[in-house]
Amino acid sequence: MISRHILPHYRIAVVGAGAVGCYYGGKLAHYGREVHFLMRSDLAHVKKHGLRLISRQGNIHLPKVLAHATPEEIGPVDLVLIALKATANASLDTLIPPLLKPDGSTMLMTLQNGLGNEEYLAERFGADHVLGGLCFVCLNRTAPGTIEHFGHGRIEMGEFAGLPLPRTWEIQGEFKRCGIVCSVLPDLGLARWRKLVWNVPFNGLSIAGGGIDVARILADEDLLYLTRGLMDEVIGIARRLGHDIPPAFADKNIENTRSMGPYRPSSLIDYLEGREVEVEAIWGEPCRRGFNAGAEIGRLETLYRLIRRLTREKRGEI
Amino acid sequence: MISRHILPHYRIAVVGAGAVGCYYGGKLAHYGREVHFLMRSDLAHVKKHGLRLISRQGNIHLPKVLAHATPEEIGPVDLVLIALKATANASLDTLIPPLLKPDGSTMLMTLQNGLGNEEYLAERFGADHVLGGLCFVCLNRTAPGTIEHFGHGRIEMGEFAGLPLPRTWEIQGEFKRCGIVCSVLPDLGLARWRKLVWNVPFNGLSIAGGGIDVARILADEDLLYLTRGLMDEVIGIARRLGHDIPPAFADKNIENTRSMGPYRPSSLIDYLEGREVEVEAIWGEPCRRGFNAGAEIGRLETLYRLIRRLTREKRGEI
Repeated sequence: MISRHILPHYRIAVVGAGAVGCYYGGKLAHYGREVHFLMRSDLAHVKKHGLRLISRQGNIHLPKVLAHATPEEIGPVDLVLIALKATANASLDTLIPPLLKPDGSTMLMTLQNGLGNEEYLAERFGADHVLGGLCFVCLNRTAPGTIEHFGHGRIEMGEFAGLPLPRTWEIQGEFKRCGIVCSVLPDLGLARWRKLVWNVPFNGLSIAGGGIDVARILADEDLLYLTRGLMDEVIGIARRLGHDIPPAFADKNIENTRSMGPYRPSSLIDYLEGREVEVEAIWGEPCRRGFNAGAEIGRLETLYRLIRRLTREKRGEI
Repeated sequence: MISRHILPHYRIAVVGAGAVGCYYGGKLAHYGREVHFLMRSDLAHVKKHGLRLISRQGNIHLPKVLAHATPEEIGPVDLVLIALKATANASLDTLIPPLLKPDGSTMLMTLQNGLGNEEYLAERFGADHVLGGLCFVCLNRTAPGTIEHFGHGRIEMGEFAGLPLPRTWEIQGEFKRCGIVCSVLPDLGLARWRKLVWNVPFNGLSIAGGGIDVARILADEDLLYLTRGLMDEVIGIARRLGHDIPPAFADKNIENTRSMGPYRPSSLIDYLEGREVEVEAIWGEPCRRGFNAGAEIGRLETLYRLIRRLTREKRGEI
């Protein structure tokens, strides 16, 4: 367990240095924390030029960044922030062990999308090491070592295995001191399902509807109807699994989305650029859990199977 | 009522002279029946050059065809064969009345796809005038006045309002004498639902799956799974509505489809060429009837709404 007084000195590793990893890791480093970035494609560039965060809240340039090619170079840390694409989770089997402290106190916090990421870590490294953070943020990696921030930025974090612990609050405090809007969740599972109420229809229909932004989904009577039907289905599955989401949450989500304008969900951008889409985390795993719980899953399953097909075809895998 | 002895003399009108109308009307005319074709785009060509049916079962050239621009030119007939696209049904309100005999004996037989066409005619012209025919045939209009026949050709016909009548058997006999494989159905509604078990998934996924033929649907694990799920759902709706289709019918349908090779459903061809797709007849109306019957419709509804969106976008209507 990490006690409060050693917090400012603890070592942090960021695994998966895409937009999310560089943004939050960059904020922590900017405020003086010891943050080690595990990098691949951007490694040489970042070693030479550092990291740039472009934001209307103020630009940040970090000329010197602790960037590494392997987890062995980093060694044991107190906190690992995992921001890999969920489709690359298998690589965690080898990336995580060198980062673990012998005393078992290393915390693994996944900042990934969808369902199944905490479970993946828990199965391999023990449930009591695992935390999850839901990121509500609009980011884009616009060039090597350069992350553009378009809005929001809140993290909602919680323990995988149960209620918040002292360490959960400590991390929250540390993040807040580094300028990150952050809250602690009493129920991480509920929060994941609440986020899926948005991600399932909007990420999904942006792809299956022909490659369109959220404004065009909302403007189309058929897709809006389907959005509502999918939200109801996700809420129904969540309720079967014991997560109490009120039906009115769907309407509220749709209303909030109207203010986003022509926003393109991250899955759509991945799809259009031929990158892997987190199909299993966002649609497959919720679908399987709904099936196992005996919930109605017809809409979700149809979307899941279509997106699986469309993304594989787009990437030339069929 | 038409009595047997006058049959060879009765007047037939074909409304909607696309591939289906020209093929069956052409067969009847070839065997000496008085067939009047109501035509639009191909009228001048057919008046000058006649009709050509290209088929491995033997080519037919009809140099002189009774082709007309208006139903008034045709006047009252004994039998109207309706082969318009279901999306053009509104035009029947003005096309049919000039074809009706004052004694009320004109029979209206729709050869159209999907659900709702018999009902459309019944509401306007009386249920006891209406018959339906399901066409199991692979046709393509390859040039003005030229229809290519790739295989099959069977018509299953029945009365809209109930059991077969003497007139139903008479029409069957007449069609058979003109070389058309033809059977009489005790339950037209059941037959329509049985055909939807195929049309809903294969026509639907050929569009929503990215513009692919049935062989590619069968070769894809996700689309095959979805095909089976959609078939189960259609069978479930049909059973709720009193049409007894055994669950094994789905497997049989899938097996039969394997022998079709890279067949492109008519809806896919319409979609790819930017023509109207019979969205309401094939997906919309079954979905509404399932909803009203309290059946599970999640898969069907998702497909319906996506196809409605995709086809409207393709045609530049959004």
